Amino acid sequence: MARGRISRLSVRDVRFPTSLGGHGSDAMVSLSWLFLGFLHLHLVGMGHLSFSIQTLTTRLPMLSWRLMQEMDSRDMELPSLWEKALKLIGPEKGVVHLATAAILNAVWDLWAKQEGKPLWKLLVDMDPRTLLSCIDFRYITDVLTEEDAYEEQMLMHGYPAYTTSCAWLGYSDDTLKQLCAAALKDGWTRFKVKVGADLQDDMRRCRLIRDMIGPEKTLAACACPQKRKCQMMDANQRWDVPEAVEWMSKLAEFKPLWIEEPTSPDDILGHATISKALVPLGIGVATGEQCHNRVIFKQLLQANALQFLQIDSCRLGSVNENLSVLLMAKKFGIPVCPHAGGVGLCELVQHLIIFDYISVSTSLKNRMCEYVDHLHEHFKYPVVIKQASYMPPKDAGYSTEMKEDSVRKHQYPDGDVWKKLLAAQEN
Amino acid sequence: MARGRISRLSVRDVRFPTSLGGHGSDAMVSLSWLFLGFLHLHLVGMGHLSFSIQTLTTRLPMLSWRLMQEMDSRDMELPSLWEKALKLIGPEKGVVHLATAAILNAVWDLWAKQEGKPLWKLLVDMDPRTLLSCIDFRYITDVLTEEDAYEEQMLMHGYPAYTTSCAWLGYSDDTLKQLCAAALKDGWTRFKVKVGADLQDDMRRCRLIRDMIGPEKTLAACACPQKRKCQMMDANQRWDVPEAVEWMSKLAEFKPLWIEEPTSPDDILGHATISKALVPLGIGVATGEQCHNRVIFKQLLQANALQFLQIDSCRLGSVNENLSVLLMAKKFGIPVCPHAGGVGLCELVQHLIIFDYISVSTSLKNRMCEYVDHLHEHFKYPVVIKQASYMPPKDAGYSTEMKEDSVRKHQYPDGDVWKKLLAAQEN
Repeated sequence: MARGRISRLSVRDVRFPTSLGGHGSDAMVSLSWLFLGFLHLHLVGMGHLSFSIQTLTTRLPMLSWRLMQEMDSRDMELPSLWEKALKLIGPEKGVVHLATAAILNAVWDLWAKQEGKPLWKLLVDMDPRTLLSCIDFRYITDVLTEEDAYEEQMLMHGYPAYTTSCAWLGYSDDTLKQLCAAALKDGWTRFKVKVGADLQDDMRRCRLIRDMIGPEKTLAACACPQKRKCQMMDANQRWDVPEAVEWMSKLAEFKPLWIEEPTSPDDILGHATISKALVPLGIGVATGEQCHNRVIFKQLLQANALQFLQIDSCRLGSVNENLSVLLMAKKFGIPVCPHAGGVGLCELVQHLIIFDYISVSTSLKNRMCEYVDHLHEHFKYPVVIKQASYMPPKDAGYSTEMKEDSVRKHQYPDGDVWKKLLAAQEN
Repeated sequence: MARGRISRLSVRDVRFPTSLGGHGSDAMVSLSWLFLGFLHLHLVGMGHLSFSIQTLTTRLPMLSWRLMQEMDSRDMELPSLWEKALKLIGPEKGVVHLATAAILNAVWDLWAKQEGKPLWKLLVDMDPRTLLSCIDFRYITDVLTEEDAYEEQMLMHGYPAYTTSCAWLGYSDDTLKQLCAAALKDGWTRFKVKVGADLQDDMRRCRLIRDMIGPEKTLAACACPQKRKCQMMDANQRWDVPEAVEWMSKLAEFKPLWIEEPTSPDDILGHATISKALVPLGIGVATGEQCHNRVIFKQLLQANALQFLQIDSCRLGSVNENLSVLLMAKKFGIPVCPHAGGVGLCELVQHLIIFDYISVSTSLKNRMCEYVDHLHEHFKYPVVIKQASYMPPKDAGYSTEMKEDSVRKHQYPDGDVWKKLLAAQEN
């Protein structure tokens, strides 16, 4: 059993001015920086932390700092730290849950480094008893008990990815065409489009993408369910329930594989209603990136509320809570297609989905992992994409470390990048 | 339309060492202080803030402070401040939601004071258009649209209460008997018992309470559904779903009116399963005090997951979000029986439930409001209880103000009370 002690820690507020180029724009957020609270655990390891696109995130580093202060006088006994930490700091939701996830992600990184393995390999090699002890089964035993929990197939594989980088809401049609053409050339066949702000705009943009990627072609190498080049749509929680059904019925002609986040991430029954209406039109419902804990995922599965489950490496309580969701998805036969993008999310989540493939789902059917091409250059161990697939990382740890130079430049508000931008704003 | 400007604010960390006497103990919390972040809005008014029993709450004042700093340069346009504030600070759940509720509760207090009315009267007198503009309908329009929203009956009434003060989990049988006898003498007929830690203990304690209050007596003045002296049970989220059903089946012989918080507050479908199993035994399911937003309440109602709905004045986004829940409960015909107790919760929630009676439900059937007899003496306008009923407050505002002397003594860690206690702990 891994043990350690946090001897020192520091939190830094790092931001990337991505919205200057319209990257990341969607139906709810027209202008946003990408924030990153960057957390160092000293002496025994280092790791980075939670990410989200809300303004709120500016408070994450501060919160994490306070939480660490409560925790750092305690010995760490992995893997049960997760349960203890949450018991200590309260409700399994909201920004504190994010901050806890950050701390625990750093601890997982450290554990993997102690073992000298990339995180996915640590998980794959772990004996079933230890793996189960990482999971908090409270509140989910009605769908999952410890007996359900293992699979053994071991295989190394590039994990299929799709790209969100071509069709942010704020891009012009020209930019969209240009990016889509370049991506097709690089081997991408699966594209996501942001929708939800304006129906006429959406129809024009979705038609444009569909025309670019071509109709329903059979692709032997494609991981999509219908073996086709596919288009996904993402509304970023913009709609109410009836509105989602109505809007998507009008976009059905462009044959989207899924509609992502059609409404509030808390609305299990709403997603079930939307699924029921859209599945007959060939459109699945995808959600999960903002589901705040395993109990919400449990219900989404119980209620047939989604056809694609999107875990997030930094929103749930780190590896521990994601493990319970992977197992529940397996039990319900729902494919996991992780949320990624942003700052470091791709780097982290690739470990989880590769583990899912090798040890849990053992299938690529209907499965792919989101990819966004921004900001990887700031990481010491950036993702490696080949032919639109994530190649399994080989370095020890959870791929969380940023380059010191990047942190320094993007630290808010004193890094060079922000000094310049803020000065420009003032003039 | 009310407007104002926050000119100055301060946040103080106030704690009451209630667990020294076992008050507040339940199946999940054996030892807890009662925390209170106390928030002053200066020049234009003052009010106090969110409360919960998690250790976490120590960070609320700090969080609120930061949130206020983001907000206080903005004009306040009531009542839409609520939507704006949440949009500004992110996910509608967790500790940040609590802190926002705190700020907005203070603003509502201030608004009522500007109008020279107690809050319930401000709400009752408000024109329907303004009232509706206080509500954020996003994500709940599938069960509630603005057309549904009003009722008019105006009546002044003492609102029926039940007491939680007699049967905390940590009390000895002797204490329990003594408190129950005294309460009966004071006119209380409705009692809540904490359960969930040990079945044999629970059976003994529930039998004891049932023996004290007597069997199923018809009481003309009683607001309970079956016009009986009644006993409620509260498990404080201790159980998994199947465990809740099994455990409560064994306590059914003591004829509880409801089982409160049988499992995770996020588990809508779990509560539905429990309701389905227990309603035939004459036991309703009650929950809501830890439901983090209106979307969760919407689904609890849609899924027939509860028979008693328990709003909390400080967890939801203040008066605004509670209004939407009151209206949804009305639409589904589910009685609202608010959560109260703790520090100041009774003082606040009485306004909401009195408003509910006069302008929304216009019924007392199956309805009562929780009451806990601790800590009212620290408030400038403490609740007035007569014959086990809340008498409508007459002072302007939201009854949120604490006595300065109480704040000073209980400020953590420098108030007199804490200096002594912390010194004693060290010795």
